[in-house]
Amino acid sequence: MLVKTQVKYIQSLSQKKFRDEEGVFVAEGPKIVEELLEAGNTDLVQLYAESGWAQKQSSLPQDLVQTVTPAEMERISFLQTPHQVLGIFRKPVFPSGLSLRNKISLMLDTVQDPGNLGTIIRCADWFGINTVICSRESADVFNPKVVQSTMAGIARVRVLYEDLPQFLQEHSDIPVYAATLNGTPLPKLGAIKEGILLIGNESRGISEELLQMSRHRITIPRIGKAESLNAAVATGIILFALGFAPGFNKPV
Amino acid sequence: MLVKTQVKYIQSLSQKKFRDEEGVFVAEGPKIVEELLEAGNTDLVQLYAESGWAQKQSSLPQDLVQTVTPAEMERISFLQTPHQVLGIFRKPVFPSGLSLRNKISLMLDTVQDPGNLGTIIRCADWFGINTVICSRESADVFNPKVVQSTMAGIARVRVLYEDLPQFLQEHSDIPVYAATLNGTPLPKLGAIKEGILLIGNESRGISEELLQMSRHRITIPRIGKAESLNAAVATGIILFALGFAPGFNKPV
Repeated sequence: MLVKTQVKYIQSLSQKKFRDEEGVFVAEGPKIVEELLEAGNTDLVQLYAESGWAQKQSSLPQDLVQTVTPAEMERISFLQTPHQVLGIFRKPVFPSGLSLRNKISLMLDTVQDPGNLGTIIRCADWFGINTVICSRESADVFNPKVVQSTMAGIARVRVLYEDLPQFLQEHSDIPVYAATLNGTPLPKLGAIKEGILLIGNESRGISEELLQMSRHRITIPRIGKAESLNAAVATGIILFALGFAPGFNKPV
Repeated sequence: MLVKTQVKYIQSLSQKKFRDEEGVFVAEGPKIVEELLEAGNTDLVQLYAESGWAQKQSSLPQDLVQTVTPAEMERISFLQTPHQVLGIFRKPVFPSGLSLRNKISLMLDTVQDPGNLGTIIRCADWFGINTVICSRESADVFNPKVVQSTMAGIARVRVLYEDLPQFLQEHSDIPVYAATLNGTPLPKLGAIKEGILLIGNESRGISEELLQMSRHRITIPRIGKAESLNAAVATGIILFALGFAPGFNKPV
């Protein structure tokens, strides 16, 4: 049976302050939990599972699993419709050292919506991008809503929080491609093999300071009348175009 | 001053049943409201605005505007952070008759998340897609969360709710391109000028029945390890690729 302190502890993890103090985060639902258990770089701290799900798992670390009733799951879940299992995991550990050479990385100038940030990380995960550099004012990647939207990408994509202008100064040898509304049309750019793709805030776009530090401005051509695209959709389109333009030697 | 019946009426519009009965929907925030006022195919019923915003507008139909205080706006808003203005609009009216010839249309097999549906419509709006056909089990396009995510695309993109297999039977001359995980890689497909792009449910994908009715299966190539892409991101990437592949004669 769940005790009150457990419920309180889990609920406290909706706040960044407590997640940071404890070094942990919450993930929910069979798919994400199973993928995190497999990923290997994020240790399981505790698993709360309904018996139906737990019985189907052959290799769970039994000492870390507590069976709960659906009613108990409702008390601890952050989801509107709880999903059988909730795991508390240690934040993932990535190899030390950071190389931006011979690959495309992502930089987010203050993406604030948790769903957008999570969807962008899921997208990075799909296209094999392994580094996402966020401004310090961006949503926290361990926010439960972000974790859910990453669909376990959180275990495979390294997310850093940095002072972005300073970071770009320190990596001035890597070209920056800023996604704007008035740059080179994406189909004319072709594939690139190295660079930082810079995506702006949902309403303000990219700050002037960062724009000045960008070598290229690129634009997704518009046929219709929408004023802009959602930040995650724009990221997906540009990553696709940068990686799969003709002549770019990637497996398809 | 707002009276109780007004607050109740606006709140009732969070429910599809009441929106359908009244034939209206709610949109919030200066950007969307201004675009809807301009779009011309959706009549304003009533506007609730804070005085700061209302004073800056030169051409508001004054008899339909009621000034409210920020505290009153909080009582009627569906947003966590209310945005100065809330409008009640008649559902948009599109020209009668439906042609799917010489263009790309979208079909959604039960996209259920309001944010995803709205983002897909915004995306369709960007790429000049003017028809989106949804299964009857999809999220309602006039749900306030959907309206917000469309960023006024709701006034420009026509959204129909249909029995999808029957609809495809009636339009069997239009080729269907189903987005799946095991089809022709998108870069090999090239541009198309006519067709229905079929996008599946967030977790179940496309139903077997609809898959059988699709002439083509297409896939966004994956480099990394994510199991899937968000439905709106996938839609954006495919629309981009179908419209802007080399040799396709679109303005860039």
